[in-house]
Amino acid sequence: MTSRFPSSVYRTRLDRAAALAAEAGLDALLITPGPDLRYLLGSRAESFERLTCLVVPADGTPASVVVPRIELAALKDSAAADLGIELRDWVDGVNPHQAVAALLPGPARTAVTDAMPALHLVPLTEALGAMPVLATAVLRELRMTKDDAEIGALRTAGAAIDRVHARMGEFLAAGRTEAQVAADISAAILEEGHTEAAFVIVGSGPHGADPHHEVSERVIEEGDVVVIDIGGPVEPGYNSDSTRTYSIGEPSDSVAATVAVLERAQQAAVDAVRPGVTAETIDAAARDILVDAGYGDVFVHRTGHGIGLSVHEEPYIVAGNDIPLEVGMAFSIEPGVYFTGEWGARIEDIVIVTPEGCESVNTRPHGLTVLPVR
Amino acid sequence: MTSRFPSSVYRTRLDRAAALAAEAGLDALLITPGPDLRYLLGSRAESFERLTCLVVPADGTPASVVVPRIELAALKDSAAADLGIELRDWVDGVNPHQAVAALLPGPARTAVTDAMPALHLVPLTEALGAMPVLATAVLRELRMTKDDAEIGALRTAGAAIDRVHARMGEFLAAGRTEAQVAADISAAILEEGHTEAAFVIVGSGPHGADPHHEVSERVIEEGDVVVIDIGGPVEPGYNSDSTRTYSIGEPSDSVAATVAVLERAQQAAVDAVRPGVTAETIDAAARDILVDAGYGDVFVHRTGHGIGLSVHEEPYIVAGNDIPLEVGMAFSIEPGVYFTGEWGARIEDIVIVTPEGCESVNTRPHGLTVLPVR
Repeated sequence: MTSRFPSSVYRTRLDRAAALAAEAGLDALLITPGPDLRYLLGSRAESFERLTCLVVPADGTPASVVVPRIELAALKDSAAADLGIELRDWVDGVNPHQAVAALLPGPARTAVTDAMPALHLVPLTEALGAMPVLATAVLRELRMTKDDAEIGALRTAGAAIDRVHARMGEFLAAGRTEAQVAADISAAILEEGHTEAAFVIVGSGPHGADPHHEVSERVIEEGDVVVIDIGGPVEPGYNSDSTRTYSIGEPSDSVAATVAVLERAQQAAVDAVRPGVTAETIDAAARDILVDAGYGDVFVHRTGHGIGLSVHEEPYIVAGNDIPLEVGMAFSIEPGVYFTGEWGARIEDIVIVTPEGCESVNTRPHGLTVLPVR
Repeated sequence: MTSRFPSSVYRTRLDRAAALAAEAGLDALLITPGPDLRYLLGSRAESFERLTCLVVPADGTPASVVVPRIELAALKDSAAADLGIELRDWVDGVNPHQAVAALLPGPARTAVTDAMPALHLVPLTEALGAMPVLATAVLRELRMTKDDAEIGALRTAGAAIDRVHARMGEFLAAGRTEAQVAADISAAILEEGHTEAAFVIVGSGPHGADPHHEVSERVIEEGDVVVIDIGGPVEPGYNSDSTRTYSIGEPSDSVAATVAVLERAQQAAVDAVRPGVTAETIDAAARDILVDAGYGDVFVHRTGHGIGLSVHEEPYIVAGNDIPLEVGMAFSIEPGVYFTGEWGARIEDIVIVTPEGCESVNTRPHGLTVLPVR
């Protein structure tokens, strides 16, 4: 797969983004490098101190990009040329924030991408004469609901990370350190078709009780329960993210029973997904089962997050989020239990909302996978 | 070297930052993950959608960190515990921007780190009741002037990248693609002591005429001039950045003469460095020589950038920057010439201002290095 979709995809996205910005009463969207720029223009440009900014006027007039001359080449792979988007290049010494403001009425009502750093947002606010709002409110509607090409990319990513989990017996064994296991998993993530090993969590024994533990020099032992949470992007930039929990040798009855409850909780959340149901309902579906079984206090995070060009994006599957699910939304369902100083477990699939319910892009067995003690 | 300096270093930095914030008439500094957080706390924490924010009150009362409970572990390696900094953890569902505002008088006069994403700056502004300014103005004074430990780390980084350039004959040859050469260079960057190959530019032939070209599948040919601009961090996070230009076989007289002028320009800028001279004077020292020789139009970027925990930071060596240099400032001096469609050249050292002038942490020969055609 190439690094972006056909240019017509971006034409549609830009037109819809402009229309939504107009509906929201805005004059323009201001998009610096990051997932929103990749979504709207197919550009993987990165920049920090020199401003690169896509300006999408809400009135339907052509978009343009304010870009440092020395970074013009970074836009070559984007849809900008095909779509006739004007590149307004600037050189060191010019004030690029004023250049953006000059494209707009003043004071302009604008919305900025989540990823815009304060380094640009503060001077842009001054140049514009008004504080921007977040473009999330406008773009979430677009980015949350995946089209067929995006769903295809998420399926490809899901199958790739499933192949890595299927090979876990090659990597994970007593006597190896978490770091050694993680290095092998990273290589396998690339071998199986990702462009990057974006994250590799190997949480063995007590480390499994920290949901955001990454890796350490801890030596894995017989009897350990090990949480493996891994993923990364496949072209054109869509991410995988899947967690499975492994046992090095047969687990105790107590561990097995707890993981069985967790598996039921994860399945209940998957079963609850259908169009029109709210995000928080999915969180509650998993949480109710864990609370009923006495594990409410050890399920310390939300049930999931949206996924696409970003590993974490809208919709968040969390209490208080009453957004109704729509066909094409993609997100993780990943309840976990965490016993500080002892062990932890998490089960995570990425699902895509369908008219009847949802499709999981991950199909590995959900229960504790027991690896032999070698 | 470990991942941070002794905790007393961070105590001093926090105290000085608070004092400078008070001088600037601020109530507090608000620092989310990035180089400023690493500078002030020795923390390599990363976060995006969940707010982690160091709050440094200007009145000298203790600093605290608002941090998601599931990311508490990421602060374990920082100086927070040694310095008695309070960790105010929050769980999903809580409004962390209000939690920051609650620590401050309202409306508070605050300054935020450059790296804070709009995702947090927009809601923080609302919670605080006032638009923050950039903390750069306060922190630049601290971060620009390196202490002895930082200078030691920059020397270590410079020596490491010099060893990679010294090995360039192992990697760079006619018949290989830029990507193949870059892969070998990346491995060597790690072998020579960096924790990451942060950037590898292999600009061969016409690609050398694009200052921000990275790598491609272009096959390097006999007679090519090749720009190699490489670097990355060494512990505890300080970066190398050095460019040399190579010729595959003997260069033409015209190329050799042009690079000789570039070498004079780079040396003139180095010779111009001493305390009290402005940053733009250093830019002019290189630029004047290139302009006089008729290369003014093909030197399309600034002469340099500060370096430390960030690859690009203050002071920028650019027209219009009248900041006077001080002992301990560290920055690149990297003039270049770019002939579109033909070839390019750049020479880059990192220098540190001394009482008498400057010390270069890079000591490889500056002129065109001719590699034999194998």
